[in-house]
Amino acid sequence: KTKKQMQTVTLIPGDGIGPEISAAVVKIFESAKAPIRWEERNVTAIKGPGGKWMIPPDAKESMDRSKIGLKGPLKTPIAAGHPSMNLLLRKTFDLYANVRPCVSIEGYKTPYTDVDLVTIRENTEGEYSGIEHVIVDGVVQSIKLITENASRRIAEYAFEYARNNQRSSVTAVHKANIMRMSDGLFLRKCREVAENYKDIKFTEMYLDTVCLNMVQDPTQFDVLVMPNLYGDILSDLCAGLIGGLGVTPSGNIGANGVAIFESVHGTAPDIAGLDLANPTALLLSAVMMLRHMGLHEYASRIQTACFDTIRDKKVLTKDLGGNSKCSEFTSEICHRVQDLA
Amino acid sequence: KTKKQMQTVTLIPGDGIGPEISAAVVKIFESAKAPIRWEERNVTAIKGPGGKWMIPPDAKESMDRSKIGLKGPLKTPIAAGHPSMNLLLRKTFDLYANVRPCVSIEGYKTPYTDVDLVTIRENTEGEYSGIEHVIVDGVVQSIKLITENASRRIAEYAFEYARNNQRSSVTAVHKANIMRMSDGLFLRKCREVAENYKDIKFTEMYLDTVCLNMVQDPTQFDVLVMPNLYGDILSDLCAGLIGGLGVTPSGNIGANGVAIFESVHGTAPDIAGLDLANPTALLLSAVMMLRHMGLHEYASRIQTACFDTIRDKKVLTKDLGGNSKCSEFTSEICHRVQDLA
Ligand SMILES: CC(C)[C@H](C(=O)O)[C@@H](O)C(=O)O
Ligand SMILES: CC(C)[C@H](C(=O)O)[C@@H](O)C(=O)O
Repeated sequence: KTKKQMQTVTLIPGDGIGPEISAAVVKIFESAKAPIRWEERNVTAIKGPGGKWMIPPDAKESMDRSKIGLKGPLKTPIAAGHPSMNLLLRKTFDLYANVRPCVSIEGYKTPYTDVDLVTIRENTEGEYSGIEHVIVDGVVQSIKLITENASRRIAEYAFEYARNNQRSSVTAVHKANIMRMSDGLFLRKCREVAENYKDIKFTEMYLDTVCLNMVQDPTQFDVLVMPNLYGDILSDLCAGLIGGLGVTPSGNIGANGVAIFESVHGTAPDIAGLDLANPTALLLSAVMMLRHMGLHEYASRIQTACFDTIRDKKVLTKDLGGNSKCSEFTSEICHRVQDLA
Repeated sequence: KTKKQMQTVTLIPGDGIGPEISAAVVKIFESAKAPIRWEERNVTAIKGPGGKWMIPPDAKESMDRSKIGLKGPLKTPIAAGHPSMNLLLRKTFDLYANVRPCVSIEGYKTPYTDVDLVTIRENTEGEYSGIEHVIVDGVVQSIKLITENASRRIAEYAFEYARNNQRSSVTAVHKANIMRMSDGLFLRKCREVAENYKDIKFTEMYLDTVCLNMVQDPTQFDVLVMPNLYGDILSDLCAGLIGGLGVTPSGNIGANGVAIFESVHGTAPDIAGLDLANPTALLLSAVMMLRHMGLHEYASRIQTACFDTIRDKKVLTKDLGGNSKCSEFTSEICHRVQDLA
């Protein structure tokens, strides 16, 4: 093996169980001898000049340099008037694509088997525009904003993703029968982009129909691409099919290689500091990160070690059905990572 | 038994398999000696004075008199520029509440058992306002409209429904963390109304969280109330949990007792006229209708006959896993209805 050049990753441990599960990931990466140098940063928003919320300059500066972040859960909102840190991070680094692979985990029983799909969510506009008004007393409007550029960009991302990940179909999820202009524009861009990817099958489906079909037979889906809110909903629904947010990785992708990978579960303050947390979601997000960085061999090894540990059922955290501590589960994965070397 | 006064119901058979399944329901109602006089009407939209789409005057007039409709599937849209008939009906009669009970059917296997919940969807505003604009080339906005009145009305409906149907909790489904003003208003009205129903437990949950929890354990939910689009999504998702739109009833409720009950599946043109359709969804919608009209004894008898037929598995249509024709399935239910008399 050639010795790999070390690459820097900004590590945002987060709140609650965040520091524990981040430490677990760091430990497993060490066992794998993954060529990563961690730069730890806190991202709790601060008020910048002019009263605008921003992430602390040293965190921003680290991300600008490393381009890659790994992030644990953050409590949101910290206080009234405080922005959602997740939204602020997406905005600050223009992380326009949220990617969530949902794959059934052998040995972890749910009502479904053989789920193997990816939701790709437009992450910057739509129902998340933040533009709202009171028209008259008792009448409020929220504006859903759909642009040609963001729609084309996310559609292109989805098709590129499909092609680069040996996926055979992309489904655009929409309600263009109701929101004819906005979802219509989104859908049109998907159709146009599809023209350039004749190797990938393109289909379109109403969001309600997707939800119904999804719970009846998720194996019919492959890559799904959709506007912001629909992605918020569907990505959580799909996570539920394979065992919940505790085992589902997530990546937020921007332009020029910038990306933040994160576990999307909560901070679980009730078990924080008790060595009971399950690091799987953050670990699998870190595996996505390794693939994004081209470090495929490390990614596969760590992923295999994690899935083997879950399948063997001997050393599992409580939420996975076992009695082991976070540190025990982590050590088990570390040993397996070394055995696989 | 006292002889019941006959009541008129406007019957809208609809397209595709609509006429067959409507005939099945009429036949079963005859066997039950249900005191219903059917007034059949076509609702295909016509262009009224000023070019406005409207439902035909004789259908409107029938509904205005009877106040109660039973409706099969309609093909939508019939042609470009033609309005969705479902939306037009909701609008014409101000059917502000869409109610969908989702109850696991014994003998009809799905990944879930013991589902017993009701989705209550605001049916008149929200993302369905139809207000959209091109701001500049390539930038489109759709307006989501939330009003105090419609929010209070649907919240009141949900709590009344819960109380009248021996349900113990109501969950408001929202994204007020993102749409703080619009979903915030909806949520505030739910909270206010909840104050008047201390016998019913009130909870609030993010839509994404509901979706995740729903596929993990639907038995935790009871009555759910939500804005229009969220209801579109969740009602289909929940239908999927119990076997799909072929077995899920639906009611659209307006003020002063006006209501249209309908099956929400498609027109299935491929099997139309072949005596293969499954009338269950329309029949169970008709059962909801009977309860709405206070005809509880007829409702229970027909529902029992239908569920017994499905549980016994001897005479089932193809989509339910059997080999029987629509007419055979219908006859089986008729016999059972008579036996139960
Ligand atoms: C925390 C919240 C703002 C966020 C969202 O609604 O997008 C969350 O649900 C997510 O999916 O990341
Ligand atoms: C047919 C369509 C307009 C409709 C909707 O989106 O509301 C349908 O999905 C429904 O749920 O009744």
